[in-house]
Amino acid sequence: MPSFIGSALRGNFFLMLGLWWSIKYPIKYILLKLDSGNPHSHWIHSMDIIEGTMKAFFALGGILAEQLVPGGPHLSLYDSKAQDWVQLMSWPHMTMYLFYGFSGVADVLVHTSLKLPVGLDRLLLALALFAEGFLFHFHDYKDAALTEHLYHLMSIAVFGAALCASLEVFQRDHTLLELFRASLFILQGSWFWQIGFVLYPPWGGPGWKQEEHGNKNFLTMCFFWHYAIGLLVMAANGFISQQPVIANSKVKKVKDPWTVKSSQR
Amino acid sequence: MPSFIGSALRGNFFLMLGLWWSIKYPIKYILLKLDSGNPHSHWIHSMDIIEGTMKAFFALGGILAEQLVPGGPHLSLYDSKAQDWVQLMSWPHMTMYLFYGFSGVADVLVHTSLKLPVGLDRLLLALALFAEGFLFHFHDYKDAALTEHLYHLMSIAVFGAALCASLEVFQRDHTLLELFRASLFILQGSWFWQIGFVLYPPWGGPGWKQEEHGNKNFLTMCFFWHYAIGLLVMAANGFISQQPVIANSKVKKVKDPWTVKSSQR
Amino acid sequence: MPSFIGSALRGNFFLMLGLWWSIKYPIKYILLKLDSGNPHSHWIHSMDIIEGTMKAFFALGGILAEQLVPGGPHLSLYDSKAQDWVQLMSWPHMTMYLFYGFSGVADVLVHTSLKLPVGLDRLLLALALFAEGFLFHFHDYKDAALTEHLYHLMSIAVFGAALCASLEVFQRDHTLLELFRASLFILQGSWFWQIGFVLYPPWGGPGWKQEEHGNKNFLTMCFFWHYAIGLLVMAANGFISQQPVIANSKVKKVKDPWTVKSSQR
Amino acid sequence: MPSFIGSALRGNFFLMLGLWWSIKYPIKYILLKLDSGNPHSHWIHSMDIIEGTMKAFFALGGILAEQLVPGGPHLSLYDSKAQDWVQLMSWPHMTMYLFYGFSGVADVLVHTSLKLPVGLDRLLLALALFAEGFLFHFHDYKDAALTEHLYHLMSIAVFGAALCASLEVFQRDHTLLELFRASLFILQGSWFWQIGFVLYPPWGGPGWKQEEHGNKNFLTMCFFWHYAIGLLVMAANGFISQQPVIANSKVKKVKDPWTVKSSQR
Repeated sequence: MPSFIGSALRGNFFLMLGLWWSIKYPIKYILLKLDSGNPHSHWIHSMDIIEGTMKAFFALGGILAEQLVPGGPHLSLYDSKAQDWVQLMSWPHMTMYLFYGFSGVADVLVHTSLKLPVGLDRLLLALALFAEGFLFHFHDYKDAALTEHLYHLMSIAVFGAALCASLEVFQRDHTLLELFRASLFILQGSWFWQIGFVLYPPWGGPGWKQEEHGNKNFLTMCFFWHYAIGLLVMAANGFISQQPVIANSKVKKVKDPWTVKSSQR
Repeated sequence: MPSFIGSALRGNFFLMLGLWWSIKYPIKYILLKLDSGNPHSHWIHSMDIIEGTMKAFFALGGILAEQLVPGGPHLSLYDSKAQDWVQLMSWPHMTMYLFYGFSGVADVLVHTSLKLPVGLDRLLLALALFAEGFLFHFHDYKDAALTEHLYHLMSIAVFGAALCASLEVFQRDHTLLELFRASLFILQGSWFWQIGFVLYPPWGGPGWKQEEHGNKNFLTMCFFWHYAIGLLVMAANGFISQQPVIANSKVKKVKDPWTVKSSQR
Repeated sequence: MPSFIGSALRGNFFLMLGLWWSIKYPIKYILLKLDSGNPHSHWIHSMDIIEGTMKAFFALGGILAEQLVPGGPHLSLYDSKAQDWVQLMSWPHMTMYLFYGFSGVADVLVHTSLKLPVGLDRLLLALALFAEGFLFHFHDYKDAALTEHLYHLMSIAVFGAALCASLEVFQRDHTLLELFRASLFILQGSWFWQIGFVLYPPWGGPGWKQEEHGNKNFLTMCFFWHYAIGLLVMAANGFISQQPVIANSKVKKVKDPWTVKSSQR
Repeated sequence: MPSFIGSALRGNFFLMLGLWWSIKYPIKYILLKLDSGNPHSHWIHSMDIIEGTMKAFFALGGILAEQLVPGGPHLSLYDSKAQDWVQLMSWPHMTMYLFYGFSGVADVLVHTSLKLPVGLDRLLLALALFAEGFLFHFHDYKDAALTEHLYHLMSIAVFGAALCASLEVFQRDHTLLELFRASLFILQGSWFWQIGFVLYPPWGGPGWKQEEHGNKNFLTMCFFWHYAIGLLVMAANGFISQQPVIANSKVKKVKDPWTVKSSQR
């Protein structure tokens, strides 16, 4: 059962980021649309720094959890007795967290006085996603056909987000790219939960049959149902989170109708 | 034979969209070229809203048809008696329609007062196409080598259109991208008909032999003949649909030669 | 031996285009660089129209040759006696020529008064290349591992040129893209000759052993040696073809040093 | 053991380039950021010419080393006695060096009076990387599953750098692309060393077991640990190499505070 916990933790890491972004980016978008003078950039910068710090800390937590969870490798990499590597999928997942840690550090550093190039944070996010995607892609799942299928499906979300973050290096603050990235993080998060339920059912018993043909086809569809639900959640989050901002700006509109009108374009 | 009907319905969904676009976009192009003041944008917006509504309704119809057609799954997903999933390719196709439904809703919403980001309609169209492409790509066709080949060929049209719609998020109203997208929808539509004829001949009898080597190679060519015919149809549609607009503008040209001249650049 | 002729004809089609471009584009580049007023655009347009006409005629010739060459299918597609398709790789190659014919027609039409969108010629060239690439990619070569390898290697040149032409839809008249496209056409042309020599040696005898492991690895390298030689040929062609233009402009430079100086930037 | 030397030499070629870039590009970035008048472009141009010359010479050295190293092919390509090709992976690696040689020559030529199109140097670097990537991708490793895995992993770094250099054709002097390219060269260099240690341990004995499942999964992770260390080295190099430039500019700042302030944006 430890693996269910590991999968759920990974799911939460991505779900939290995705859900937070599904609130943050619509607010940022409406703020920039309503107030052309961009006076809220300070608020957005603070959010970015807090987000980066949290990301780095959670990544550190993830590294420790992958190693020290009961049944984990406890930092041993090679079992000289059994003459085999100690892996259990924990080491690759740890490596995955490591790159998200780098990304979190870069998120913070670009807001310091170090004069780093604009877009470095997005580049390191893209690198973390590419590293994750290739780690799962080049992993050899042996005969576990269903496990391989589950991770291959996830690679759609991972590489999609990696491409999205790469584009953001060049097209920073593009709302649709930011929302698209958020939706793929939600998808990745909920899919890690699904992997947990399929491979290590928390109510005990073995996982789903690896060689069952129908399981594979059902899970392919299921992946896209996750995404459909994720899109609906994003629509709801975006709509609700914008309401207080719009209500607030309507008060201003009465006072100064001209400025608002010209900035609505 | 129910599956022939299903395939034909899917074909019609894409053919209608593609053929409509092969008329709409050339007209839009010539309107914008002749009248630099862009006075026809109202007409184009109305067309977009009607198109989105139709798309959403047809997608809903498709979902119901996939489920309730005789031989369909009738909303049952798991057959606990046979201990297997009820699929028949109907559930994945239903999932496909679901995302086109989302795309139709987005087409309408971007024209409301909700202040959604420009390009959201194109992004959701791209998502629908990517979802369709990956649904077919990750489906396991078991030993049905010819069925797999038919869907793999179609994925050229699907992923091609998905990339095209993704580019349109950034390069909106690019005539060549719009026409390219239309041509791939026509291809996809006529190919769904071809799939129906190959796998479930409407005049009865079994489908073509799955393991026949020559069938595979013939259908590869056949796919591109479909595209060649589709391109000719598009050229004809574009040419014919532009004639009334040009004739109409020539009348104007006599009256006001100067404006037209400067807008022909 | 008919197949050697077919392969050589295909090779010449692409070699001629590539070599012509390796002369045309450097001249166009130096003309635009030396004369900022772009007075040579008329010459370039004429070249484009002649090129398109030639391309369409050669494509028509290729279609007829593929069908009517001794040993070709002579327009028969299905042999009802043997209950099998008549293919021999001639039909796919005919389909390939068909799309290049479309591309040639488009090259001419964009220079007429039809007001076609700018870039349509490049789009149809890209479509012809993509069609060719997918035709070879989805062909089933059965056990002919070496034939498959030869066509897979060529697909690097085909898809590379397809991507290049797609970019040119958006970045028209970009010298490096034009030169890159030329180099890949030269590669494709010389590789068709190589395929002819490997599979149907003109001095008789069987082709190289299909299952020989070393043949595969040698031909992989050989493909890049073709490209290395192609690059050297392009460098020589570009250098030599620019000399008369530069010599000509130096005469002008004496007369009017100021204009030339400012346009050298 | 000769093969360990070959692998180490290749590793050094890429490591040197990558490490040099990890120093050069941060300095170039800070110079351009601090001095808006771009007075250091002469220094950067000189560096480019020296770099190109060195690259061409090392490539020539690599070609000779691959051929003449004890155990190399000594320019013989076909062993007519054994009726097989003489390859040993030396010929493909020689071909790889050949294209880097072209790239080095182009680096120098773009700085001459030949009026070559801007970006030609980046295009030829991209071609060298694509050629290398496809050479390894289309090589048939027979049953050497681990060797194939090692080269497939490297193709991430190779194709990544190829895409990066292709983008630089259009977005020249983009600091993040330059740094990203440097990081992938460091990765490729250190991975060539890793390949040497895995396949031909310098302390004698056979290489790692090719068919061992765990080896494959360990090396996948190991590849990304190489990259993580490479990123840390780049961060250190970039930080340290910028210090003298910043210190130097602070002296100026005292003298002329206004210019520096406006250029810090």
